[in-house]
Amino acid sequence: MDVLKGLVEPNDKRILMLVADGLGGLPDESGKTEMESARTPNLDELARVSSLGLVDPIGSGITPGSGPAHFALFGYDPVEHAVGRGVLEALGSGLRVTDRDLCVRANFCSLDASTGKVVDRRAGRIPTAKNLELVARIAAKVKCIEDVEVILRSGKEHRFVVVFRGPGLAQELSETDPQKDGKAPLAVRGLAPEAAKSERVVDEFLRSASALLKSEPVANYFLMRGFSMIPRIEPMAERYGLKAACVAVYPMYRGLAQLVGMDILETGETWESELGTVQKHMGEYDFFFVHLKELDKMGEDANFAGKVQYLEKLDVLVPRIKAMGFDVLIITGDHSTPAVLGTHSWHPNPFLLWSPYVRQEGASGFSERTCSRGQLGRMRATEVMPLVLANALKLRKFGA
Amino acid sequence: MDVLKGLVEPNDKRILMLVADGLGGLPDESGKTEMESARTPNLDELARVSSLGLVDPIGSGITPGSGPAHFALFGYDPVEHAVGRGVLEALGSGLRVTDRDLCVRANFCSLDASTGKVVDRRAGRIPTAKNLELVARIAAKVKCIEDVEVILRSGKEHRFVVVFRGPGLAQELSETDPQKDGKAPLAVRGLAPEAAKSERVVDEFLRSASALLKSEPVANYFLMRGFSMIPRIEPMAERYGLKAACVAVYPMYRGLAQLVGMDILETGETWESELGTVQKHMGEYDFFFVHLKELDKMGEDANFAGKVQYLEKLDVLVPRIKAMGFDVLIITGDHSTPAVLGTHSWHPNPFLLWSPYVRQEGASGFSERTCSRGQLGRMRATEVMPLVLANALKLRKFGA
Repeated sequence: MDVLKGLVEPNDKRILMLVADGLGGLPDESGKTEMESARTPNLDELARVSSLGLVDPIGSGITPGSGPAHFALFGYDPVEHAVGRGVLEALGSGLRVTDRDLCVRANFCSLDASTGKVVDRRAGRIPTAKNLELVARIAAKVKCIEDVEVILRSGKEHRFVVVFRGPGLAQELSETDPQKDGKAPLAVRGLAPEAAKSERVVDEFLRSASALLKSEPVANYFLMRGFSMIPRIEPMAERYGLKAACVAVYPMYRGLAQLVGMDILETGETWESELGTVQKHMGEYDFFFVHLKELDKMGEDANFAGKVQYLEKLDVLVPRIKAMGFDVLIITGDHSTPAVLGTHSWHPNPFLLWSPYVRQEGASGFSERTCSRGQLGRMRATEVMPLVLANALKLRKFGA
Repeated sequence: MDVLKGLVEPNDKRILMLVADGLGGLPDESGKTEMESARTPNLDELARVSSLGLVDPIGSGITPGSGPAHFALFGYDPVEHAVGRGVLEALGSGLRVTDRDLCVRANFCSLDASTGKVVDRRAGRIPTAKNLELVARIAAKVKCIEDVEVILRSGKEHRFVVVFRGPGLAQELSETDPQKDGKAPLAVRGLAPEAAKSERVVDEFLRSASALLKSEPVANYFLMRGFSMIPRIEPMAERYGLKAACVAVYPMYRGLAQLVGMDILETGETWESELGTVQKHMGEYDFFFVHLKELDKMGEDANFAGKVQYLEKLDVLVPRIKAMGFDVLIITGDHSTPAVLGTHSWHPNPFLLWSPYVRQEGASGFSERTCSRGQLGRMRATEVMPLVLANALKLRKFGA
């Protein structure tokens, strides 16, 4: 990767990386995957004149979460640049996370007042409306501790996220969640000398916020886990010489893109709107990351037919995408989400690369199977960005 | 690689590694690459009974220069064993480089005598004849500085190379080229304690050599960059137990082979002559590296048809190569040079391996496409030598 950096030579060529979340799948009883079942003449034609391959987000057999999957695609080692759960939750809630933020995921829970033990770690999954009420109550009273701002966001049911924003914070803190009902919540402890202030601030937050819950019949306490700050990440502008923009609807993906230094563009909720946003900003950036969420949702819902429908919807957009005139075009997933599994999976991602400088496949279509026979072979996700830069002629020769 | 070394077991089996420089290509408007366009019945038949694959010289998207590309193919990590520009230029000029040589690339330039600033870093690309005259003038006067011999070679136009040969030299020197017209040349500075003598010697060379150019109307000064010495490299004899020979016409490739300890055989300029040289020395070596330059030249000249012609010429030589009776035969490139790009590229190299112990492909021909579907898959260049040694039965089992 140090090799790469010395070779970067910016030019005006433009790259579109289209990430169809959860693209790859598995065959259902018909023997065909979602991609093989969908009627996608435009994608098939594009595959014919592109190079294909399969991309492993992390490694053999490893199912990635969205954070590492995207980081790897952006060319950052997903293990080295691990993003903690607290940060991911904060990003997912739509917060902009800065390098002074200590983030943590919290759950309302039920405590037995007499024994001090947790009787339900999820407070009976209280309604989200109740969560909103409790979080508002805390936020109204606990705004600042020492010179640290306290920011709260409700999640669904019992979940919420806390961001401590201020100088001198560190993530080396023990969790307060005992992980089992019937045990007492744990105290928060600094695990490194530099976490002393964080321990003090979080401990004070725990004390004053929980005091406001004492009279609650169910959600009378809360547990915290996944203390984390954002990893130190070299922005894409420095690493690749790219002026990069993100077009994504969901906060999590916008947040991940922001962490690697992309500009986050305002966009509407439909795929058509997302493409319109790209078109509008076409002259301002040389790298667009466009995130399309719905295939993953269908996969997570075990909705094979729904995923097929969204693939056909994607196919309809291909002529418009081609007409935009990008110099390099990538269509891939961040991870697979087979409907038959109903969840993220470890299967490598179908990967399509088009540029004027590819060894065209002459492939019969765009699917897991055609990609597995593609000329790019099986790649690690972190190998994608160098290949993309090369196809945009943005890399000098290594050595003489 | 440490694993490999303990397993090497020399025998009398002989290996031919034929490197067709710039072999791999890209499709032109016909949709076929140079290899797919050429009529190569002998190569196709050989591919049928061989194993095929694609080889990455450095890594995904990285376009290699000849130095790292060959080092990788010889099994030496091309980043760890980086060869500096000065050394490569010296090798390319036909000089034998020893481990006491500090090499540097130099350019004649034009200096404004009144301001002392560079007005043309290339001295208007003076004719090569003028370069020869100036270099001869310096060489006649500046032969030795302290106990260091000074060796000069003219390149084309404004380029020349200087080799300082003597004890106690080091490569940690700053360059004198300011990289831009309108700036003064820089002084040479030692960047490490062990470079003190080098700084002194080079500084004195700069002073006395430039004094001889003062009266020149155009090329009245020169700039130096890429100070380098040869990296410490374990010879192939030690690393692989091979007695290795190089048959190459161009000095650069002979020089690279010499760096890894190959014997350099005298040969004529044609491919037929190169094969004749192999035949002549057949009994003396168990590894022959044969370098064929012309495909790369055609690629660099963006001459698609010319590259196709040379591929057909290579095909004609295949029966003769087979008849030599090598135990292991490799045909590959060091890097790709697609005519449509007119330069080295990042695309992986077609790779053919024949021995009695391969899983024969039954491939329809020898091309980037058939290689991409080959049983060897996609390999790193540094994985080639172990595979070659195995096919020559020169490696013991690892572990019991």
